Amino acid sequence: MRRETMATAAVIVLMAFLCCNVAAQGRRRGLRFDGKKGEFRILQVADMHYADGKKTPCEDVLPSQMSSCSDLNTTAFIRRLIIAEKPDLIVFTGDNIFGFDASDAAASMNAAFAPAISANIPWAAVLGNHDQESTLSRGGVMKHIVGMKNTLSKFNPSEAHVIDGYGNYNLEVHGAEGSKLANKSVLNLYLLDSGDYSTVPSIPGYGWIKPSQQLWFQRTSSRLQRSYKNKPEPQKGPAPGLAYFHIPLPEYASFDSSNFTGEKLEQGISSASVNSGFFTTLVAAGDVKAVFTGHDHLNDFCGELTGINLCYAGGLGYHAYGKAGWSRRARMVVASLEKTEKGSWGTVKSIKTWKRLDDQHLTAIDGQVLWSKSSSRKHMLH
Amino acid sequence: MRRETMATAAVIVLMAFLCCNVAAQGRRRGLRFDGKKGEFRILQVADMHYADGKKTPCEDVLPSQMSSCSDLNTTAFIRRLIIAEKPDLIVFTGDNIFGFDASDAAASMNAAFAPAISANIPWAAVLGNHDQESTLSRGGVMKHIVGMKNTLSKFNPSEAHVIDGYGNYNLEVHGAEGSKLANKSVLNLYLLDSGDYSTVPSIPGYGWIKPSQQLWFQRTSSRLQRSYKNKPEPQKGPAPGLAYFHIPLPEYASFDSSNFTGEKLEQGISSASVNSGFFTTLVAAGDVKAVFTGHDHLNDFCGELTGINLCYAGGLGYHAYGKAGWSRRARMVVASLEKTEKGSWGTVKSIKTWKRLDDQHLTAIDGQVLWSKSSSRKHMLH
Repeated sequence: MRRETMATAAVIVLMAFLCCNVAAQGRRRGLRFDGKKGEFRILQVADMHYADGKKTPCEDVLPSQMSSCSDLNTTAFIRRLIIAEKPDLIVFTGDNIFGFDASDAAASMNAAFAPAISANIPWAAVLGNHDQESTLSRGGVMKHIVGMKNTLSKFNPSEAHVIDGYGNYNLEVHGAEGSKLANKSVLNLYLLDSGDYSTVPSIPGYGWIKPSQQLWFQRTSSRLQRSYKNKPEPQKGPAPGLAYFHIPLPEYASFDSSNFTGEKLEQGISSASVNSGFFTTLVAAGDVKAVFTGHDHLNDFCGELTGINLCYAGGLGYHAYGKAGWSRRARMVVASLEKTEKGSWGTVKSIKTWKRLDDQHLTAIDGQVLWSKSSSRKHMLH
Repeated sequence: MRRETMATAAVIVLMAFLCCNVAAQGRRRGLRFDGKKGEFRILQVADMHYADGKKTPCEDVLPSQMSSCSDLNTTAFIRRLIIAEKPDLIVFTGDNIFGFDASDAAASMNAAFAPAISANIPWAAVLGNHDQESTLSRGGVMKHIVGMKNTLSKFNPSEAHVIDGYGNYNLEVHGAEGSKLANKSVLNLYLLDSGDYSTVPSIPGYGWIKPSQQLWFQRTSSRLQRSYKNKPEPQKGPAPGLAYFHIPLPEYASFDSSNFTGEKLEQGISSASVNSGFFTTLVAAGDVKAVFTGHDHLNDFCGELTGINLCYAGGLGYHAYGKAGWSRRARMVVASLEKTEKGSWGTVKSIKTWKRLDDQHLTAIDGQVLWSKSSSRKHMLH
């Protein structure tokens, strides 16, 4: 090849790389607030426990429902939720498949995430404690997920050389198109792998978020806060953050019906049996306003501790333990922007949540404000 | 300069570097078990609260002692301990000086650590919550310490780019000279900065060990365990480890007189008000058998939780709160090697502890075995 030809070829390769890289980044960084309503809507789907589709029966439903009930009911519920809530993002918080009963992990995941893909909605997933129990390892499951259509899931942060788990990443949600904050992340999502089971003989039970993950979170939060406070459009406080993972933190045990919204039908909180300090790390970082987990299908409450709401979604999947007569459910989170004096959109004004039940009317329950800019200001003035 | 001259100069510089580096490493890595008794003896000095020497009065001593009592009583007690116990290492676990009353931090430290220096005993120090309250910052205090004579203290690990605090480091104690383990660390000491006060508005109280420090500990422990299990002289389990820092962990609150050895004269445990997960990280690492802190001068117990002894030393300093009539005290730890069949020394067989009171006879109290290889083996067989 002549030198000129080589140079031309190199330029073409470079341009192709830039083009696709930009396109990939465009897709990946495409989350932004809606310019009409100034909203960003997140649907959380917890514990689908998907297995083999129609062949997989339901658990804990009424006798009258049993014969016609399968994984397809899980799919149908998600489709109804998408139509009713029109989410901008769907976050699947683990136990997406129930590996023990899934004969092919990849096929099971393809079916489980299909409603998001066919509706063309960006989606992100983290792992639970059952996702690796089929034909793929934990790493293999996450690798499959990041290759799926429309997903914003990432395998792990590229800047962290060593990190525990699979699927630790953050997503930025930019301000409304045309507003001054169009190129700034005004809402930050942190997604983490809370592990499956302890591998330490003297510690029984579930896994936990490790120091390497906490350090990554801390540095990411710190970088995002710096960027938010710097030019252009420098802001005062940090942008609000939301954290999504599977296993609840030990601090979820701090509440009872006197100080939470929702229900706690389980005996306790199935957190790790030890405290790995992530709640402290979250409080210290200062930007995360709420944590959303699954894992305990019959707990669906939100309770506030030290300025952070600790929320469950309640179980969504039909091939998962539940309670007959107690509807499967999902959690919505809607962040709303402030209207600026000039009629444009500003930063996040409030974050609200509610749940939707899989009943005839998709009944919305337990609506509450998780965070608002004004109460946060008031809090700071105290 | 001619090329040959440059090359010669480079070689000289390189040789000088190697020479001094080796010498520095020789000094730094000089800790090893005694070849006669097969022992390594560590004296822990907690909360000297040193200020301005003779001018600084004692606190909480009997009225009859008050007039003649000063920081010099602290010094005298340490000198007596050194003569009686002949330690191979002295570890000062913070609040070495009581900054508020020390008119010159450097002079106060020079006087406080003088007994170790004049006795020519290697020593290591970590910071408490009062060390930075005089003329030097926290970083400045640690910088001064690492420049002092005979100290093995380090400012921070060179391999960690960013770490919280000042004075996070580890020390290796090699097997007995002439034994097969002479070049292997058979006892590992981890020294950490547990901080001073929370800087997070919503978290009151004392500081805590951060994710960056925990990750450093985890990686260091893991590296040491690999090296211990690898050739030459590959070992089965990890070498036992001991951790030293100032502020107790929240898990110190797990005990009462039914399951600890020693006393708890304080109302509670003055740990951080939040759990930062370091106990979990210690249990998960698997090599640390005991943690030694100070901070609560009137608590001096050891209690075992999930295979790790959590120990206080009890306060040593006379210019520190205490209880009149309740002797100032210090904690000894002695690790002993196993005799091999060939009459040489092997790995660590047991780790014992006791305290010495500053009374007429330097009474030794609360002797106990913290760990032994045989019980550890038994434990593993269960």
